[in-house]
Amino acid sequence: MKKRYLLAPGPTPVAEEVSLRMAEPMVHHRTPQFSAIFAEAAEDAKYLFQTKQDVLILASTGTGGMEGCVTNLFSSGDKVLVINGGKFGERWGNISETYGLNVVWHKVEWGYAANPKDIESILNQDKEIKGILVQASETSTTAAQPIEALSKLTRDRDDILLVVDAITGLGVVNLPMDEWGIDAMVTGSQKALQLPPGLALVGLSEKAWKFADKSTCPHFYFDFKKERKNLANKTSAYTPAVSLVIGLREVLKNIREEGLDSVFKRHNRLARATRAAVEALGLQRIAPDSPADSATGFFVPDGVDGAKLVKSMRDDFGVTLAGGQDHWKGKVVRIAHLGYVDTFDVVIAISVIEMALTKFGAKVELGKGVAAAQKILLEGYQ
Amino acid sequence: MKKRYLLAPGPTPVAEEVSLRMAEPMVHHRTPQFSAIFAEAAEDAKYLFQTKQDVLILASTGTGGMEGCVTNLFSSGDKVLVINGGKFGERWGNISETYGLNVVWHKVEWGYAANPKDIESILNQDKEIKGILVQASETSTTAAQPIEALSKLTRDRDDILLVVDAITGLGVVNLPMDEWGIDAMVTGSQKALQLPPGLALVGLSEKAWKFADKSTCPHFYFDFKKERKNLANKTSAYTPAVSLVIGLREVLKNIREEGLDSVFKRHNRLARATRAAVEALGLQRIAPDSPADSATGFFVPDGVDGAKLVKSMRDDFGVTLAGGQDHWKGKVVRIAHLGYVDTFDVVIAISVIEMALTKFGAKVELGKGVAAAQKILLEGYQ
Repeated sequence: MKKRYLLAPGPTPVAEEVSLRMAEPMVHHRTPQFSAIFAEAAEDAKYLFQTKQDVLILASTGTGGMEGCVTNLFSSGDKVLVINGGKFGERWGNISETYGLNVVWHKVEWGYAANPKDIESILNQDKEIKGILVQASETSTTAAQPIEALSKLTRDRDDILLVVDAITGLGVVNLPMDEWGIDAMVTGSQKALQLPPGLALVGLSEKAWKFADKSTCPHFYFDFKKERKNLANKTSAYTPAVSLVIGLREVLKNIREEGLDSVFKRHNRLARATRAAVEALGLQRIAPDSPADSATGFFVPDGVDGAKLVKSMRDDFGVTLAGGQDHWKGKVVRIAHLGYVDTFDVVIAISVIEMALTKFGAKVELGKGVAAAQKILLEGYQ
Repeated sequence: MKKRYLLAPGPTPVAEEVSLRMAEPMVHHRTPQFSAIFAEAAEDAKYLFQTKQDVLILASTGTGGMEGCVTNLFSSGDKVLVINGGKFGERWGNISETYGLNVVWHKVEWGYAANPKDIESILNQDKEIKGILVQASETSTTAAQPIEALSKLTRDRDDILLVVDAITGLGVVNLPMDEWGIDAMVTGSQKALQLPPGLALVGLSEKAWKFADKSTCPHFYFDFKKERKNLANKTSAYTPAVSLVIGLREVLKNIREEGLDSVFKRHNRLARATRAAVEALGLQRIAPDSPADSATGFFVPDGVDGAKLVKSMRDDFGVTLAGGQDHWKGKVVRIAHLGYVDTFDVVIAISVIEMALTKFGAKVELGKGVAAAQKILLEGYQ
C-alpha cells in the first residue's frame, strides 16, 4: 500500500468533490444547460483576473494560450522583448520566433528577477519594441518577476503591450489586470485552478484588442476575436472541454467564496512556511531574492544525487516533488504550494525532504524544517 | 478552502480508487456477475481471517456481527465471561444481557489489558462459563487484549468459546483464527478494511458451529446458519450491500497483494512512530502497557480543554481525531492509524497536535514529536 501525494508545480491536486462533479454524465455543449455553465465560468473568471474585460476559455494547455497571445496580438517582423529567466521565458521567445517576430532576448540569471530599471532603459533605447513577454512566476526557477513595475513602463503607452504568462501566478499572488494595466494574461487549468490540464484562460485589455485588429500572424484554432464573438453567445468557437469547464465553474465559485485576499494570504503563508523550513534545514534556496509564492526550490546538498532523491521521494515515499530542468537537472528540488494545497501539504513536503535526505546520508535534523514551517503555518489559525 | 483529514478510529479514509469502484452503476444482486464478486470477497476474507472456515458477510455494522455472535452461539441463561475494559467490552455485556445470558463481568481498568492468569483462575473456579467475550483492541482506550493467551485457555476445551470483537484488530495485528483457535471473530468495514460503514464480517470455528446448532436465542436478520447456506450459493440470505461488497472485494485484493505480514508491519511501524511522538512531546499515553497498533491516545495536558482541542483540530485545522468517551470525555485525544493510512497521516496527526496544543497555550516543542515519529517511520524506507 502506498498513498500518493502530488506536490509538483502542476498538475496540482484536484479536490475529490471537483473530480466527482467532472465525472457527472456528459452533457452536450450546445445546450442551454451547458451554455449557462460556460457563461458562469467566464463571468467568475473575470473576478479571478480582476478585470472587466472578457476572459476567453480555450481547450488547450497554457502554452496554447501563450501561442494565441503571440499570434493574435503581433505580426511577423514585430519586435518584442522577451524576459528569459528560465524555461518558460525561453518558451515566449521560441513561440515568437516561430511566427517570425523579432525577439530581443533579455537574459536573466536563473533564480533571479529582471531589474525594471534595465527594462526601462532598453525600452527607452528602442522605441520599436511592441511587447514585453514575461512570466509572473517562472516555474522552472521559482522566481517571481516584477509585473507591477513592468506595467508602469507600458500602461501609459499605446504602442506596447505587457503580455504576462501568469500560469503559476494567477490565483496565487495579486495580479490585478485592470488596475495595473496588464494587456494580456494567460493561465492554465492545472495550477492554481486545481483542475486537470486542458484549459487555457486568456484575458486581454482594450489596448490588446486594438493590437489584435492589426495582427497578421496566421492563427486558426487560437482565434481570439472569434472566441470573443462566441463568448457573447455563451459558447466557444470550437467544442469546449465540457468536463473541465464544469470543474472550472466549481473551482471559480470556491475561489470567489474564499475571496481573492484569503487565497493570496493562504499561498503567501504556505510559501513563507516552506521557505523558512528550507532555510532551517540549512538548504540553499534557488530563488533567494525574489521568490514566487507558487513554489520553492533548493539546491540539493553536495554528495546527494538530486535526480535519485526526487525519484526516491516519488517511488519510495509516494510524494511527487519536482526536480530541476536543463543545467539544474539533478541539482535542485522544487516544492509546489499552489492550488488545492494547505498547511499539511507543506508539512508533508518538508517531512519527506527531511526523511529522504536522511535516507541519502545528508546531514539534516529531522523535524527541524517542520517546526520552522509550523511556526508560520500557525498564523492561519490565530 | 480547507482540506480535511480523517484520522479517527473509524470510519477511516476510503481510497479514491475504491470510492470510484463503488460508484460504478448499480448491479442487481441476484446475477452471476454479482455472485462472482460476492464469492471472491468471501474467499479473500478467509485470507484476512487466516481461516479455512467460511466468513459471513452481513449488511450491518460491526455491532450487528457482535449481536449475531451472541444470539447464534448462546442461549438464554448461558454464562459468559465479558472482559470489560472499555465501551466495547461493555457492549458485549449489554448485548448478552439483552438476550438473557448470565454475564460474569470482568472489569479491567480503562487503558489496561486483562491478565490471562486472572481469567484462567476464573475459568478454573467456574466451569459453567461457556464463552469469553473480548475485544482484540478496545478502541475506546487504545488497549490491546491478550487474545493469544486467552485462546490457550479455551482451545482445548469443547465447552467454551473464545469470541473476539476484532473490529479494530483484524487487518492490523496478527490474529490467526485457525492457528490460535479463535472461535468467533467479528470485524466491520469501516476500520482496517478501509470502507464506509455498513458491512460486518464474521468467521466461526467448527466448535462455534456446533454451539450454533444448540443455540436457542431468537434471531432472524442475523441468522448465521442461513447465511452459511446462502454463501455456498455465492449469495447472502437478505439483500447484500452491493456497493460495499464491491469495495470489499477491491480492498481484500489489495490486502492480499500487500500481504498480511506487510500489513501488520506497516501498522506496527505507524503505531510505534505515533507512540514515540506522543512520548517525545511529554504527553502521557492512555494505554501505557498494552497499546493497540490501531490507535494511540494521550491525556490532554492540564489546563487544556480536550473537547475544545479536538473541536479546534477538526474545525480550524481540518483534522479529525477522536476525543475520549465516558469518564475520559474532554480528557483524552485518540489518533487512529489503521486502514488506508501511512507515513504522512502520522506526520499530519502529530503535526496538528503540536500546532493545536501550541494554539491552546500548552508547552510543546513544535517539530519534536514529528522528528520522533520520522525516525521510526524511516524504517519503512530502508
